[in-house]
Amino acid sequence: MIRFILLLSLLALPLSVVAQPPQSVAWNIVEGLTTEVGPRLAGTEAESMARIWAVGKLKALGFSNVRSEAFVMPVWVRGDERASLTYDHGPQNLIITALGNSGATPTNGLNGEVIGFSSLEEMIAAPNDEIRGKIVYIGNAMHATQDGSSYGYFGNARRKGPNIAAKKGAVAVVIRSIGTDHHRMPHTGVTNWDADVKPIPSAALSSPDADQIERNLARQHKCFEEFQQKAACSLVSLKLLLTPKFIGERQSGNVIAEVPGTDPAAGVVVIGGHLDSWDLGTGAIDDGAGVAITTAAAKAILDSGKKPRRTVRVIWWGAEEVGGFGGAAYFKAHGTEAHAFASESDFGADRIWRVDFGLPDSAKALVARLTSALAALGIGPGSDPASGGTDVGELVKSGVPVIDLQQDGTRYFDLHHTADDTLDKIDRVQLEQNVAAWAIVLDAVANAPENLLFRVK
Amino acid sequence: MIRFILLLSLLALPLSVVAQPPQSVAWNIVEGLTTEVGPRLAGTEAESMARIWAVGKLKALGFSNVRSEAFVMPVWVRGDERASLTYDHGPQNLIITALGNSGATPTNGLNGEVIGFSSLEEMIAAPNDEIRGKIVYIGNAMHATQDGSSYGYFGNARRKGPNIAAKKGAVAVVIRSIGTDHHRMPHTGVTNWDADVKPIPSAALSSPDADQIERNLARQHKCFEEFQQKAACSLVSLKLLLTPKFIGERQSGNVIAEVPGTDPAAGVVVIGGHLDSWDLGTGAIDDGAGVAITTAAAKAILDSGKKPRRTVRVIWWGAEEVGGFGGAAYFKAHGTEAHAFASESDFGADRIWRVDFGLPDSAKALVARLTSALAALGIGPGSDPASGGTDVGELVKSGVPVIDLQQDGTRYFDLHHTADDTLDKIDRVQLEQNVAAWAIVLDAVANAPENLLFRVK
Repeated sequence: MIRFILLLSLLALPLSVVAQPPQSVAWNIVEGLTTEVGPRLAGTEAESMARIWAVGKLKALGFSNVRSEAFVMPVWVRGDERASLTYDHGPQNLIITALGNSGATPTNGLNGEVIGFSSLEEMIAAPNDEIRGKIVYIGNAMHATQDGSSYGYFGNARRKGPNIAAKKGAVAVVIRSIGTDHHRMPHTGVTNWDADVKPIPSAALSSPDADQIERNLARQHKCFEEFQQKAACSLVSLKLLLTPKFIGERQSGNVIAEVPGTDPAAGVVVIGGHLDSWDLGTGAIDDGAGVAITTAAAKAILDSGKKPRRTVRVIWWGAEEVGGFGGAAYFKAHGTEAHAFASESDFGADRIWRVDFGLPDSAKALVARLTSALAALGIGPGSDPASGGTDVGELVKSGVPVIDLQQDGTRYFDLHHTADDTLDKIDRVQLEQNVAAWAIVLDAVANAPENLLFRVK
Repeated sequence: MIRFILLLSLLALPLSVVAQPPQSVAWNIVEGLTTEVGPRLAGTEAESMARIWAVGKLKALGFSNVRSEAFVMPVWVRGDERASLTYDHGPQNLIITALGNSGATPTNGLNGEVIGFSSLEEMIAAPNDEIRGKIVYIGNAMHATQDGSSYGYFGNARRKGPNIAAKKGAVAVVIRSIGTDHHRMPHTGVTNWDADVKPIPSAALSSPDADQIERNLARQHKCFEEFQQKAACSLVSLKLLLTPKFIGERQSGNVIAEVPGTDPAAGVVVIGGHLDSWDLGTGAIDDGAGVAITTAAAKAILDSGKKPRRTVRVIWWGAEEVGGFGGAAYFKAHGTEAHAFASESDFGADRIWRVDFGLPDSAKALVARLTSALAALGIGPGSDPASGGTDVGELVKSGVPVIDLQQDGTRYFDLHHTADDTLDKIDRVQLEQNVAAWAIVLDAVANAPENLLFRVK
């Protein structure tokens, strides 16, 4: 009967997966990490277990200098979370999840009238008197984009909205999830507070639950318009229970592995993804895929039998989601080392469709070689300057060369920061296309005859 | 700012919806029922509120003889529900939901080793000794079919599996959800117990969580095969907490409305959908759509200004999901009345693609007229005998003529019995195609010159 289970686990996968080879380095990593460790919120015991798992896996793959570099960081953990619309005729449950760094309600919950805004800007423009003492709802329907650019703008409702609403006197904030799906899957993610602001309870509603709030707010309006009689209308009220808490400073860490190069003076090449994940899903696309893709590319260098010119340093970053603590800790410890290149994979597992370069003029020939090689995988050059991401951002700002291999983000925000970020969402054909592209880039930058240390002062 | 909200609620809908007329009878019903009442589990206060809402709505639409006909039924209600894989290195949460009629765990939960089966048949064939004292997992990957036929077979793992496992000594059962999606959305639905079997805790895992269990079971196998050393492998263990309960007999009811006919001797035409829903979603596709579609078709007859030959009786059935209590109560009270026709809509809101007939030979001309009229909507005749459904099943078995307007079920089991059964899943173009088809059928059977009382003895 157990033999059947093995077959079944294949049958349960999308057909595109079944057609794939049964194992690859990348698949093996993301399958193992999401199955054997699962969710791994920064600073928790689960993230600590993930580092142990990572060190074991990277050693088993044959990398050198495998180690975990610890740092400490403040940790916030989720508690219970419930919400309901309170009608005269009974409550109607809504599905919410607390935003990272949310404040807590009293342990028996909080009741409040809802005031609704269609955007962050509208809330900012509203008089404080209208907001004081109320639960602020911010709508904000984000739509899918291939390059993920809509996240920057619309995500501000989550990142900044609660802080602004708290200053205006709101007792709590609920937002439409910053996402593009239509499932009862709220999207978490950090919200940020000014030092002098006391965090208020802040949560995201799933998209269908946000629709429900908006239909209720629309009814209230209609009621006022058609009946001119406030008593005939019940205000939209919510009951909220959120019991997250800050548990103080805890240890996190970056896991580092290397393929030693032959020319230490040529600088180090840094690639990787982040090891931590949000707590709701198992962190398959965010960012098990990223560590898997970049590690598989480095493993290809390792297995080539030819030592690269530059040392390849694979970093599985810690505590990215909650504020980029891993990137900051690495930069503090290693920022003055000679870095020839830094890049990260942190946008899912769908195919790379575009490449953006951030290389010195002296590396024009390298750009030309890479453009040609990547074109064979259907990847065209873009015109945006490459910027890296949260983890390598400090390195890049300091002048380290960077290339952004842009992944297709069309469905990324269907899953991002939700319970639905699980292994079944990874398309293995696209995962391997990522590995192939990264292997091309890694081989080229690790062995480039050009000088890439142009930032060295 | 509230005006903005109205606009926003349109913008948040799929584009196909925005292109639709802002109101229709069917949309108005399903939008109102899911927004103003929401979930309405049979026998609960919420279902009672739904009946009050229904009577008000049907009267406002202009129907005659609007009333609620009460019956009593046993009621089961959901409690807390949590599950986790218990590893040496910490727990990993899984998303589950109790099956209707599930037993409860102790209030502090239940721990057990998992024994996995890929199908109900495999579990039935296993020796009781292997199952006794364990938590039984039943895999069972159902795939989508247009006619929904896969539900009958695969659904038995849910309907019958727990009862059989309990008899074999299992302490609990978890199944892969009977569904076709890949979201963290477990599918509930009733499970049935023999009179002499004590209900055991029984729950459905979402599809990604079922994958997770199967990957763990596969690892256990690999461990045994490769290492031949049981101590090196940890068994797959689950911690389960389920606290549902039976709360005894409660009142439910059918809500009935009529368009009186001119020829009482010609029999009554019964159509409708079920008013109750599962408690996880708001019952949009199951079965707010069904009551909306059939009521809109009856409203078209009402608004035609011409009284039909036969009385059209629209029934919003109570307590369908949990055992068809509404259909049974109606048949007990009205089964001996002359019924010329009975049909129900209970398979979502996607387009009708096929029609199956269950009419007497004396109505061949009616069948021909209907085949021709429905073809104009792209609906072709099938070769299956029509059978009605849970609510009209008793009437049909007693010989009442029936037509099955078969809806496209390809995506129905992505949503069925989950929290994701919400208004945004209804495609308004397809909803209106349903109404058009039902209006054609209703007009034809209500006014047919043929005798349709062939069952009358």
